[in-house]
Amino acid sequence: MRFLTLTLFLLSMSLYGQDDEKTLKSIYDNSLSNGMSYVWLEHLSNEIGGRLSGSEGAQRAVEYTQAELLKLGLDKVWLQPVMVPKWVRGEKETGFVKTNKQRYELNICALGGSIATPEEGLLGEVIEVQGIADLKEMGEAEVKGKIVFFNRAMDETLILTFQAYGGCVDQRYAGAMEAGKLGALGVIVRSPNLRLDDFPHTGSMTYGDLPVEQRIPSAAISTNDAEMLSSLLEKDKNLKLGFKQRCEQLDDVESFNVIGEITGSEFPNEYIVVGGHLDSWDLGDGSHDDGAGVVQSMEVIRLMSLHKNRPKRSLRVVLFMNEENGLRGGKKYAQEAKSKNEMHIMALESDSGGFTPRGFSFDCSDEEFAQVKSWEPLFKPYLIHYFEKGGSGADIGPLKSEGMVLAGLRPDSQRYFDYHHTAIDTFDAVNKRELELGAATMTSLVYLYDKYGTAKKITIPVKN
Amino acid sequence: MRFLTLTLFLLSMSLYGQDDEKTLKSIYDNSLSNGMSYVWLEHLSNEIGGRLSGSEGAQRAVEYTQAELLKLGLDKVWLQPVMVPKWVRGEKETGFVKTNKQRYELNICALGGSIATPEEGLLGEVIEVQGIADLKEMGEAEVKGKIVFFNRAMDETLILTFQAYGGCVDQRYAGAMEAGKLGALGVIVRSPNLRLDDFPHTGSMTYGDLPVEQRIPSAAISTNDAEMLSSLLEKDKNLKLGFKQRCEQLDDVESFNVIGEITGSEFPNEYIVVGGHLDSWDLGDGSHDDGAGVVQSMEVIRLMSLHKNRPKRSLRVVLFMNEENGLRGGKKYAQEAKSKNEMHIMALESDSGGFTPRGFSFDCSDEEFAQVKSWEPLFKPYLIHYFEKGGSGADIGPLKSEGMVLAGLRPDSQRYFDYHHTAIDTFDAVNKRELELGAATMTSLVYLYDKYGTAKKITIPVKN
Repeated sequence: MRFLTLTLFLLSMSLYGQDDEKTLKSIYDNSLSNGMSYVWLEHLSNEIGGRLSGSEGAQRAVEYTQAELLKLGLDKVWLQPVMVPKWVRGEKETGFVKTNKQRYELNICALGGSIATPEEGLLGEVIEVQGIADLKEMGEAEVKGKIVFFNRAMDETLILTFQAYGGCVDQRYAGAMEAGKLGALGVIVRSPNLRLDDFPHTGSMTYGDLPVEQRIPSAAISTNDAEMLSSLLEKDKNLKLGFKQRCEQLDDVESFNVIGEITGSEFPNEYIVVGGHLDSWDLGDGSHDDGAGVVQSMEVIRLMSLHKNRPKRSLRVVLFMNEENGLRGGKKYAQEAKSKNEMHIMALESDSGGFTPRGFSFDCSDEEFAQVKSWEPLFKPYLIHYFEKGGSGADIGPLKSEGMVLAGLRPDSQRYFDYHHTAIDTFDAVNKRELELGAATMTSLVYLYDKYGTAKKITIPVKN
Repeated sequence: MRFLTLTLFLLSMSLYGQDDEKTLKSIYDNSLSNGMSYVWLEHLSNEIGGRLSGSEGAQRAVEYTQAELLKLGLDKVWLQPVMVPKWVRGEKETGFVKTNKQRYELNICALGGSIATPEEGLLGEVIEVQGIADLKEMGEAEVKGKIVFFNRAMDETLILTFQAYGGCVDQRYAGAMEAGKLGALGVIVRSPNLRLDDFPHTGSMTYGDLPVEQRIPSAAISTNDAEMLSSLLEKDKNLKLGFKQRCEQLDDVESFNVIGEITGSEFPNEYIVVGGHLDSWDLGDGSHDDGAGVVQSMEVIRLMSLHKNRPKRSLRVVLFMNEENGLRGGKKYAQEAKSKNEMHIMALESDSGGFTPRGFSFDCSDEEFAQVKSWEPLFKPYLIHYFEKGGSGADIGPLKSEGMVLAGLRPDSQRYFDYHHTAIDTFDAVNKRELELGAATMTSLVYLYDKYGTAKKITIPVKN
């Protein structure tokens, strides 16, 4: 009898009820059987394609997603204007390596934000380095007048591939700035990719405050080409590398965050945000990065609008503009929310690809984290097991404030860097079910936060 | 102080030590950085290809894997003879649907074990059913002289896709037998695939004890074609379907299980088996099914042979022949093990594809299950979270005996049925890291069983 009492006591501690189990089941069923995310992604990928900030594709994506949100019958749908940088790639880049014996063509692309080479291209000797620290040790004497080749590879032994990315992305982002200071001619970066293939990965880079005359062109080459170049350099230190790119940074232009809202029935002044970023790089169709996050976020608000009970809190889907090369949309949304004193209690971003969801990482207090950990059993039937503290998403970062929960969807990450920022980030690389499972997983978390609020406000229900 | 005591007590209950954490890390590192599984799979897929029992490919796979195991310097490598069925597909199948308005070609393939159609093909009216129960309800009057079209789809709301497969595979396996009893002309089955595409899925079928004159040809069509056929039938009940296949069941031939062994240093009479099946269907290259399981199992014994301590127990890799259409290899291995009184304490199979591993399912006692659950924390850094009771693998099933642990690797299953038994089960569908993570996960489990034995024999070490 004592045992029974203890059991009942434990059950009464569950921070959710059987109703919630049923609701999650209906969310997953609906997403898998009648979901819209895959349909939307098909259009975004195949009808619109690349959506670099300031491009025609980005504008068409704004109009398309606004129109689709309007069809959902939300309480409000609007565009939030934001000025964004406009960088254009120009004609396709070319590159080659010439040893004393042979010439090899390179799979190469300009990094986003880079300046062009002279019209006839750059040509120079190459110095290979394993990163920025390595470069700095060499110093001006060895670097000046040369093309710096950053060849640090992602660490293949890290299970979370984003950690491996974090371990080498600095050479792409700041490599040209640091090499420019030392008088280098240009920069070539190994693509951050865990496999060996022929696709160069673009991505953002910066010159910081470097004077214009020290700015040098930077480009990425494929992992196969990085391996080849490194091995050619071992045999012929004096080989020459040439590349040509016609990219250009233009003036900022106006673009938009796309926002849809269901106004809360009980606590309309408490906001929950779910989002992804609408812009993408230009080489592929941005299907994983971040078309997946966009359509999953739209699906969250669609599924929440179907639920028999109207959301208690105000729920917003925000499709952020310009995550890739400026984060202007994320900053703008946070700035306006702050100026209006809108109380955001929770924000969730999906920006790690449309692969099988494994869980979430949370940027929040211990108290808030304990709350979400108490929901773990609800997710077990869906094989959602990853509930860890960690980063959330770039776009929602600026919203951060005390007492708020920021969360990021964490899909399986093993294949993500096969596609990231490449020409093969296309619709066929996304699996329908995996995408839909991600949308359902996000919806389930949003549903629980809407129902129970964050830990500071929670009342413990008895499991019914 | 009481708290401290309690903590120490709990720690001392851990059924593993810090040594084990380090060993698992080195296993994963080695598999990801210097693994052989992907190299082996490339050969098995691209140099050998399909390996249907009795085929030249199957024989070449026997020779190749035997040669590769010999290179590993194991204590013993041998071939275990086993007689296997030999079914041949013959020339490529054709099929079409003809309504009163139009003719449509079908993506069709014979099911393994089916008889051929007459040389000029079969032609008949079609009756659509949702499964065997549905067929039986209709009875002979409606079925006789017709082509029965089994169109039950996999249940897309099931998270474990093998459950969805289990929910409709009976129509493929026994559909022709049941329809034959009712005088049908032939059988067409919807491919068990969760997505809509153009690839027919082959797979095994049976006539049971049906007299030869009641046996009818059976074939699978792609999911797109199944949808089309169903919708055409709604408009035109009298449409005709024709198909032609030249497949044939020949006499049994000799083939082999390929076995490698490291003899145990302390308990040589206790056997641990790890395996997959060497045969595959003939349409593709059997890269996921079960090339992945074969090379992962080989990698387990390779990684175990690298460990500083020689395995305590005898460890065998068994590459089973004929899982797909007879299970002769699995039965033969178990029969011989039994006749020699070999004490098998644990067997692990990988036969669910080379996708990101999620964990294992276990067919064992509660006591054994408690033991393996106690190891869960060791696997957490590798995102291995699925430890559930359930089936293991077809090939190791016949080994089952009291006090033995049978386990199956459980990779992510969302994409598996996109490839299963089709022409696109090829090398490019397997991701190197995902395959290698699976091999490391299997090795880790085998390492723990080798070190600690199964629950019945366990001694609890103090965490050091």
